Amino acid sequence: MGVQHPHKLQLEPGSPFGEGHALTANEPPAVEQPRRPYDIDRLTDVALAVFAERGFDGASMDDVARAAGITKAAIYHHVTGKEELLDRGLRRALEALYAVLDEPSAAKGRPVERLRYIVRRVAELAIEVLPELTVLVRVRGNSETERHAIERRRGFDAAVTALVREAQAAGEFDATLEASVVVRLIFGMCNSIVEWYRPGGRLQREDIARALERIVFEGTLSGGLNFP
Amino acid sequence: MGVQHPHKLQLEPGSPFGEGHALTANEPPAVEQPRRPYDIDRLTDVALAVFAERGFDGASMDDVARAAGITKAAIYHHVTGKEELLDRGLRRALEALYAVLDEPSAAKGRPVERLRYIVRRVAELAIEVLPELTVLVRVRGNSETERHAIERRRGFDAAVTALVREAQAAGEFDATLEASVVVRLIFGMCNSIVEWYRPGGRLQREDIARALERIVFEGTLSGGLNFP
Repeated sequence: MGVQHPHKLQLEPGSPFGEGHALTANEPPAVEQPRRPYDIDRLTDVALAVFAERGFDGASMDDVARAAGITKAAIYHHVTGKEELLDRGLRRALEALYAVLDEPSAAKGRPVERLRYIVRRVAELAIEVLPELTVLVRVRGNSETERHAIERRRGFDAAVTALVREAQAAGEFDATLEASVVVRLIFGMCNSIVEWYRPGGRLQREDIARALERIVFEGTLSGGLNFP
Repeated sequence: MGVQHPHKLQLEPGSPFGEGHALTANEPPAVEQPRRPYDIDRLTDVALAVFAERGFDGASMDDVARAAGITKAAIYHHVTGKEELLDRGLRRALEALYAVLDEPSAAKGRPVERLRYIVRRVAELAIEVLPELTVLVRVRGNSETERHAIERRRGFDAAVTALVREAQAAGEFDATLEASVVVRLIFGMCNSIVEWYRPGGRLQREDIARALERIVFEGTLSGGLNFP
């Protein structure tokens, strides 16, 4: 859907993105993938699944090596260490988020429609790049890498906050709400998806994104249905 | 209000709850409190602040002892270990959540009004019992204690999901939305408060709770203002 990625994404089964190999935190990738030579992107895939399952602090390079089915020495052939794998994962997440802002529907049109598009896409991204977003959401600022990611994430939130203010100024968005609070709450809702969404489960990406969009813009009262 | 707690809560400055001693993750409690003999509840307060700052896995009993300004041996006089302190903190969080369901406005009236009250109270609780909720929100199920807390939390979510279904059946709540998804998204938004709210900052508890309630029920479109 317009997000360009140079690397394989972690996708739920049946994803429109095609050939990505589905990884979940509970199923070690080595078991379900045919053995192919590792490159840095596939190694990052595996590391992200491990980080998402155990937490970055709780995961060791031994865990990553085990999940990848290769030796630790082989991993160090590709990367300098765990921090670099985290950095690559966080960059993917942030690139995917920022790419949304450049999509035509996010860049042109009435502020509230641009906002609606962005909110929906961020909700979808939580599922499309689940391991990446999971790791980003849990970052606490414990290292330079993490602090840099938090800064970039804040930049994204600031861009969306500015758009909320535009929509408010245009009379399209409830002006009694503090824009920065609204944006934090909306993205808090988007971020929560990574905590409870399970690939291959009953819930589809579109259902979740649609529910989130509806709550944010129309609310949940049945009267809200009067607003198309 | 109306949540009864036998222990001191972690409160933001100026809280209507009165004499609670404000703790934040960045200010070690030993510095700002007069030395009083520790009891199990005050020790839990200190431990929760430490867990909220460093994460439970990253926090040691040495950290708790340092923050409390007492020896580790003195702590073991009160508790068997870190796990017990976590258990006490999680129980506080869950008791506070379940207590909401027993409040009159949550228990009686039209389903949608009960729901509105509960959502608002849960948002307020994220701030009123910030360290407790912070620790609960981050639980991953790594121990029996954590798994028990997750089970109880799911029971709470299930009760609220049943109420959403009642409101839908009564024609008061958008029936096109899947109740369990809505509840996860709403509580995802509530939970996110613990990640960005800072006690003593510009944002007041009421402003945040009001914004959250408005988003959930009326949505953010300026047309939503037509719904009182």
